[in-house]
Amino acid sequence: MKLERLRQSFEELARFSDEGEGINRLAYTEAERNARNYLIRQFELAGLTVRTDYAGNVIARREGKSPDLPVVATGSHIDSVYAAGEFDGTAGILVALEVMRSLTDEHVETEHPLEAIIFACEESARFGASTLGSKAMTGRLDPAYTRSLTDRNGVTLFQAFQENGLDLEEVHLAKRFRDEIKSFVELHVEQGPVLEKQEAAIGVVSAIAAPIRFHVHIDGTADHSGTTPMDYRHDALLGGAEIALSVEKAALEELEHGTVGTVGVFSIQPGAMNVVPGTADLYVDIRGTNRESRMRVVDTLKTSVTEVAKTRGLDIWMDELSSEEPVQMDKILVAELKSICEKKGVTWLEMPSGAGHDSMNMAALCPTGMIFVPSKDGLSHNPAEYTSMEQLMEGAEVLRAFMLKQAKVL
Amino acid sequence: MKLERLRQSFEELARFSDEGEGINRLAYTEAERNARNYLIRQFELAGLTVRTDYAGNVIARREGKSPDLPVVATGSHIDSVYAAGEFDGTAGILVALEVMRSLTDEHVETEHPLEAIIFACEESARFGASTLGSKAMTGRLDPAYTRSLTDRNGVTLFQAFQENGLDLEEVHLAKRFRDEIKSFVELHVEQGPVLEKQEAAIGVVSAIAAPIRFHVHIDGTADHSGTTPMDYRHDALLGGAEIALSVEKAALEELEHGTVGTVGVFSIQPGAMNVVPGTADLYVDIRGTNRESRMRVVDTLKTSVTEVAKTRGLDIWMDELSSEEPVQMDKILVAELKSICEKKGVTWLEMPSGAGHDSMNMAALCPTGMIFVPSKDGLSHNPAEYTSMEQLMEGAEVLRAFMLKQAKVL
Repeated sequence: MKLERLRQSFEELARFSDEGEGINRLAYTEAERNARNYLIRQFELAGLTVRTDYAGNVIARREGKSPDLPVVATGSHIDSVYAAGEFDGTAGILVALEVMRSLTDEHVETEHPLEAIIFACEESARFGASTLGSKAMTGRLDPAYTRSLTDRNGVTLFQAFQENGLDLEEVHLAKRFRDEIKSFVELHVEQGPVLEKQEAAIGVVSAIAAPIRFHVHIDGTADHSGTTPMDYRHDALLGGAEIALSVEKAALEELEHGTVGTVGVFSIQPGAMNVVPGTADLYVDIRGTNRESRMRVVDTLKTSVTEVAKTRGLDIWMDELSSEEPVQMDKILVAELKSICEKKGVTWLEMPSGAGHDSMNMAALCPTGMIFVPSKDGLSHNPAEYTSMEQLMEGAEVLRAFMLKQAKVL
Repeated sequence: MKLERLRQSFEELARFSDEGEGINRLAYTEAERNARNYLIRQFELAGLTVRTDYAGNVIARREGKSPDLPVVATGSHIDSVYAAGEFDGTAGILVALEVMRSLTDEHVETEHPLEAIIFACEESARFGASTLGSKAMTGRLDPAYTRSLTDRNGVTLFQAFQENGLDLEEVHLAKRFRDEIKSFVELHVEQGPVLEKQEAAIGVVSAIAAPIRFHVHIDGTADHSGTTPMDYRHDALLGGAEIALSVEKAALEELEHGTVGTVGVFSIQPGAMNVVPGTADLYVDIRGTNRESRMRVVDTLKTSVTEVAKTRGLDIWMDELSSEEPVQMDKILVAELKSICEKKGVTWLEMPSGAGHDSMNMAALCPTGMIFVPSKDGLSHNPAEYTSMEQLMEGAEVLRAFMLKQAKVL
């Protein structure tokens, strides 16, 4: 494999972006379509056969000696959030392209066919819904839901499909079946600081955390901040402050399980200098791969809400917004990826993924794994997102070795 | 004095309001002008001589036997905030009117002249500046500052003066001199819950608290809430939560001094469910009548900022926005007001005022005191603001007795 060729791929793909800071390549836009067409050409030049499915997923196939055997697949996405970096998603696609090019350069033949899949609409930035392509491929897309989706300009997903020569009414035809795919492994940037801080080259993902989310609404009393003695107050902000700190404390006690708890939205009313805050709204996101650990943090949140309501004389209600189940990566694939890292002398770490990925959906279809490469300063969804070519090449080595082992080199 | 006549005054004055919930009688508007003209007529009917000064303050004078003696004055304001109640300010004016009417009914003569003053623009709601009338009367108005003031519709204070037949360039002529006024006592609703909770009819104000205000800005790191382990975070919200709670704790320790501390504004960025809050802005208001007590709370705030910055790895800066000095009420007047309550068998409480009033300015000109009457549920700046006519009549009795004592009944 060739580092310089990989670097050039990143440079070329980065050109496909709408105006604005960083990369702006939102799902189903012209910028993304152009990027997709560029990649289709590259995969074809590397000797692969490329098709686009009913959801706009691109499937590039490198034929095996036994075309009827299930494929060994990798994949990720090339759509982005607003003001994104160059690596989220793209890393997995351009590394896959480099792996395929190297196999063709070296005339490697495999028993099983190989696939590189560019999933459509992984990011929720445009339509408020994530991993649409992999959901379609795994039969997990609710038709009624997809028909309700529109972007911020009022363009419906239906129209966006049309602009891409697709028909949303046919999206169910993108579904694939269990025996078509032997295994799926996605390479992705970590989007967190762990690999960098622990000085590991590769993260072997054990499971993908899923969030459980709550809206906590606090009703206190909006009093005059000058005339209301401290012991007569029912300050909603202070109640919210205690609840936020209790979530942190509970999550810190679950460090070994990697469970995290965040109050990312916190707003108070009326929000005036001379008024004691009367109401507060908190949005809490608790996620982890260990269900019991996650539930302990949720329990602490609930206990805290009850206690704060009582001690401060506040009315608090709590609404569960969503609750998703953590997804375990296939244990055999995890062991295989670790063993490849060991054999190659690459430093690795088994770790959970705190963010969601297309692999979450693929895991419902076939044995699935994930490879993380480091993110500088843990930054992602940010123009400053960065992973070096050397780090990406280490990921490429592991991915290639894994795919060749799975696909049986002749 | 007549309770029913007082009730009727409130009913009549409440008619002078712009549209909207509750009372909307903002400073220097037509609604306020009409209310002022109505009151001028009522004071004249009660036998007083009325003039309007260069700031729009209305001065209703009941002549004394010795017209050259300094006047015994009372007063408050009739301008309101948006969606106000019927009692803030108005209580002091309509009680003064009832006192004057009763003296005339009873043909009471006093040695000193009496005055009821309707101060202009006490509320900051329209121009963002409070107690303009009493500042002008006490020579505390900065001309450059007044020229910069505009309301939310872009109307300048200069224009508002013109609409009222006034010239802002002449506002300095409203200044009065120390030997003109023997004493000034303002009757006002408490705007807090203390009298009601302590079941006292009258609050004799010992001092008016002054706020010291800070902006605290916290810079943390906006990380992905899924991929950033708890021990790698620099969460600005949690730092702000600790600081807000430390202010509360410090103020609670100063309960005996009545010092209060409030974080009334608290905002975080970016404020998304899946992002650890990167920055937080807190606006802190600490006020009290005891300078040392207030300073102890400020010191705790500063210590908390330093500690939170260190333990959480946050950059925090703190900006002092304003610092006003508490204003002591005249000790002899306080004693006199208490003694009158005792003689009348009225329950009373000596207490600080947490809110600012025209009395703050008058105290720089002449011996000044304040009488509070209870506010139901402590509510103010709210259509639900309420003080019963019986409670107002108790205040009127105390005010009348005080003024007659000061003015020497013949």
